[in-house]
Amino acid sequence: MDKEGREEKGGRRVMVGVAGVVLAASFLFMRGPVQETSAPSTPPTYDYDPCCSFPCQNQGVCTTLQNNSYTCDCTGTGHYGTNCQIPTWGSWIAKQLKPDPETVHNLITANWPLWAVINRIPFLHSKIMTYVYLSRGDLVDSPPTFESDHHYITLDAYYNESYYGRALPPVPAHCPTPMGVAGPKEFPDVDELIKKVFLRREFIPDPHDTNVLFQYYAQHFTHQFFRTDYTKGPHLTKGNGGVDVSNIYGLNEQDRRALRSWENGKLRTQVINGEEFPPYLKDVPAISMDYPPHIPIPETGKFALGHPFFALLPGLFAYSTIWMREHNRVCDELLKIHPHWDDERLYQTARLIVIGEVIKITIEDYVQHLSQYRLRLTFEPHLTHGTHFQYHNRIHAEFNHLYHWHPLIPDGLEVSNTSYALMDMAFSTAPIFKHGLDNFIHAMVNSRSGALTSRNHAHALYPVLKKVIENGRQLRFQGLNAYRRRFGMQPFTSFLDLAGDPELAADLEHFYGDIEAVEYYVGLVTERPGPSVTPLSMVNMGGPWSVKGLMANPICSPKYWKPSTFGGEEGFQIIKTATLERLFCLNMKTGCQNIAFTVPPGTP
Amino acid sequence: MDKEGREEKGGRRVMVGVAGVVLAASFLFMRGPVQETSAPSTPPTYDYDPCCSFPCQNQGVCTTLQNNSYTCDCTGTGHYGTNCQIPTWGSWIAKQLKPDPETVHNLITANWPLWAVINRIPFLHSKIMTYVYLSRGDLVDSPPTFESDHHYITLDAYYNESYYGRALPPVPAHCPTPMGVAGPKEFPDVDELIKKVFLRREFIPDPHDTNVLFQYYAQHFTHQFFRTDYTKGPHLTKGNGGVDVSNIYGLNEQDRRALRSWENGKLRTQVINGEEFPPYLKDVPAISMDYPPHIPIPETGKFALGHPFFALLPGLFAYSTIWMREHNRVCDELLKIHPHWDDERLYQTARLIVIGEVIKITIEDYVQHLSQYRLRLTFEPHLTHGTHFQYHNRIHAEFNHLYHWHPLIPDGLEVSNTSYALMDMAFSTAPIFKHGLDNFIHAMVNSRSGALTSRNHAHALYPVLKKVIENGRQLRFQGLNAYRRRFGMQPFTSFLDLAGDPELAADLEHFYGDIEAVEYYVGLVTERPGPSVTPLSMVNMGGPWSVKGLMANPICSPKYWKPSTFGGEEGFQIIKTATLERLFCLNMKTGCQNIAFTVPPGTP
Repeated sequence: MDKEGREEKGGRRVMVGVAGVVLAASFLFMRGPVQETSAPSTPPTYDYDPCCSFPCQNQGVCTTLQNNSYTCDCTGTGHYGTNCQIPTWGSWIAKQLKPDPETVHNLITANWPLWAVINRIPFLHSKIMTYVYLSRGDLVDSPPTFESDHHYITLDAYYNESYYGRALPPVPAHCPTPMGVAGPKEFPDVDELIKKVFLRREFIPDPHDTNVLFQYYAQHFTHQFFRTDYTKGPHLTKGNGGVDVSNIYGLNEQDRRALRSWENGKLRTQVINGEEFPPYLKDVPAISMDYPPHIPIPETGKFALGHPFFALLPGLFAYSTIWMREHNRVCDELLKIHPHWDDERLYQTARLIVIGEVIKITIEDYVQHLSQYRLRLTFEPHLTHGTHFQYHNRIHAEFNHLYHWHPLIPDGLEVSNTSYALMDMAFSTAPIFKHGLDNFIHAMVNSRSGALTSRNHAHALYPVLKKVIENGRQLRFQGLNAYRRRFGMQPFTSFLDLAGDPELAADLEHFYGDIEAVEYYVGLVTERPGPSVTPLSMVNMGGPWSVKGLMANPICSPKYWKPSTFGGEEGFQIIKTATLERLFCLNMKTGCQNIAFTVPPGTP
Repeated sequence: MDKEGREEKGGRRVMVGVAGVVLAASFLFMRGPVQETSAPSTPPTYDYDPCCSFPCQNQGVCTTLQNNSYTCDCTGTGHYGTNCQIPTWGSWIAKQLKPDPETVHNLITANWPLWAVINRIPFLHSKIMTYVYLSRGDLVDSPPTFESDHHYITLDAYYNESYYGRALPPVPAHCPTPMGVAGPKEFPDVDELIKKVFLRREFIPDPHDTNVLFQYYAQHFTHQFFRTDYTKGPHLTKGNGGVDVSNIYGLNEQDRRALRSWENGKLRTQVINGEEFPPYLKDVPAISMDYPPHIPIPETGKFALGHPFFALLPGLFAYSTIWMREHNRVCDELLKIHPHWDDERLYQTARLIVIGEVIKITIEDYVQHLSQYRLRLTFEPHLTHGTHFQYHNRIHAEFNHLYHWHPLIPDGLEVSNTSYALMDMAFSTAPIFKHGLDNFIHAMVNSRSGALTSRNHAHALYPVLKKVIENGRQLRFQGLNAYRRRFGMQPFTSFLDLAGDPELAADLEHFYGDIEAVEYYVGLVTERPGPSVTPLSMVNMGGPWSVKGLMANPICSPKYWKPSTFGGEEGFQIIKTATLERLFCLNMKTGCQNIAFTVPPGTP
């Protein structure tokens, strides 16, 4: 155990407990346990770049040398050997003690009385939440290491913030197959793949009673940071790298200024049918929205929103309206406490409170439902203060792809006994004004969303699905198994192991031949269902990106997370008591029923 | 000791040792030691905003309430009470154990044999270096909290990266005096101030034998991150927030591409008088340089460099040339190891190595000389791995002002027996081509720079000096004493305490009346000289910003700091063996003598 061993720090060893530390210390100058391995002591040469086969294990870094040989840099991996295959004693002990992620997941989603007890013991619950935050956060490289233009580290991965980050570098461009060395020489035909594996035969409802309010929350929430710059390419973003509430307030200062009323800190509104709504686009010329030029939309159907895309669907417009009302409600609350504050301070402070509410609701309502954890998830920023947690985030290209959750979308929605097909609602806010916002919200509450699984993509969304698969190919994503390894999971050993269902497994085997060649997004969606709303790989990859994005927000850092940042204890309490239900019930006009991310009990 | 006490974590308590922890734990539910204090239990009201008097101590946050009363948020300060004036037991013990910064400084700069011993015991030396990195880093809020447009926390302080950060918020705009409540109603006349306090009577050489090579290093190094966007205002920057070597390679991708040769990773060069130099501006039309339109400069006097400002002075051009040659030299070294690498990979990897060399030389040669520490400063990024150190940086407006070190600049330079006045060298590279680069470099080595103190600003730099004072006023900087408190130093108690010299003290008292009203930059420069090249406040404020900027660089983070990032062990060694002397000697044509940041012994 030499340099790598000594530089291996923090985290894992703590788990081993004091006895383990003493034991490990006594072995400090011994080599780690040599395992049975087929790795040769001097690597052979190949007729292709040997790094194409990703020979370095445990996240060692492969560098091609002359004569088609290679070397693995095992620094910081807790392993050594030609292929970083031999664990140091510390890593070996940690590995023995650490249960399989699938076992942990089953335990944490199991309906045991144990969780009811743990959830009620603050000391123990805090310890577990701290572990959740830190262990999830540790899986995201911060500062970011890779982008999509290089398969090695460059300074641009950090300094060029136009790049989405990458958890794994692209497959080098000159490899024998698109996945390196595994699988077919060419990717499977995307249309055939979609038809066989993705398209909905008949609507499969989500087995966890997830409703359409959840589906739209996902879309509304994530588009604040998934802001691909499509004019330049799928590897670039216009976003700010996190939960910046730009979907509510606008991405740049010009947009933010345009959406302000400049009175008492509030956002611009207008009254339609006696209710407050966002202003018409015609009244806010500085804002540019993505209304398609070929579809005739009346001027009273076009609105100015924080996100150019949120004109797309009435569900997004509903969320936009509710958050706008919430901002203005918070301004009223602040004005009661600070009647002498000017518009600017009320606006800025309300925005800080709203970002806190977004994070609170996302963790405690949204992720709680999504994960189906029986552990009560809580938003407690102080738990990571003083730890090695890094308060900086970069959105990853793979996170964007993973979040293509279009199977959630049902083929239509019934609002007050009127049926709307998916395409009836595109680029239209008409259902909201016809039935009233409250009725539309209740329709979202009462409608089941689809299961996030294979063969459940609505036909209308074919182009979106095709684009995400094509973009994944253009970005040269490594295969699903590479990502499973990257995020501490066991790779799938067979197509049946992945898909669960023999027929689907056979289809996938037909396309890919080798389980190592299954594409990232294709694998994520075709994985057998588990106890959460998404399959397990999505939970264990999306979880780290999600926790990182939420908890690395500046407001969670020690110098921000205090009452004065939010206008005093009253403002702080608005965040601490925020729930999905309060968000809607405080901002609906005629009253609210059953606000939750599940359909009410008894819904067919 | 309630919430604040419990949330007080990490860092300081460790110092107390095990005994202290046990003691502190036993006091956990007791109040802290009540100190004699004049703070009333219910704050009185004022006829002005009471927060203008900065009543909250120990970095508590003041919020004005109705009826001109106020409240202090003491969260995380380790103090409580109306004005956060009462330490918790933990803070009280830490305060007792922690020596005064001035005492520490005197100890660390004292020429004791103890340091020679400590510098040679790796275990002990590493412990001290870790403490240096972490304690310095802790003084910089990360993520950043303030910018110059608001005197309270906003999301823009983090998300709007055009802002320089602020260590202290601006003085609120509606206060009785520019400094809050202290001092005169109007700032002293800037011209009178400059004449009395700043302008050079006769050249005062730096007593630490600092030479002009050091002065130009400071200028060349810092302008990669001090990139004020003057067209928009002194609170805004075009820079990337740190050591990004943009002064060598260019700030944006367009500039970087223009400066590349696209062959073997190298930068574009041209041969003049048998030596490699940067290309003429006319040959790189994509680059825009700040040559003044009213001064006639021949086309063979204009060069394309990574920084538009580096045409200003031949010293900056000399550094630009040396770093360009170093980049190309590193490319040659990489090509020997990786003959199959393409131009792109050679370029990107050489840039990573060069950034490492810059940081290494800055810490081990430049800061070592600047601080005059007898502790050997070392660049050891692994020391902060796994700690709470944050790998993200924002340049602060106050750091930019602090770094206006123009007293270092002598009135002229003698190159090969030819004397050049300061203005002879402005916008001109002629001395380099007349005498040769090597002679010019040796002239910088052999020439003394000025002492960084009052009454030592060259007359030619009057406009620069006036601008920095005026900008500080426009940015509403708090006074020097507020910054002393912010960075853990005792505030000055009198003008004599600040200036040391009675005559200067009297002049300052005439201008400001109250020691609390002394402006930030004015106070920094007029402080009595200490053992370092800069006065002590500059060391203890600049130190944290500097350490943070150097060690928070992405290449210092655990996933970057490994051989493979730098092309393998050979590339890693280029960083680890970099020195100022090697930088010059490997890139000078005719040989090098006495390369250092001090004039050679015996220089008059």
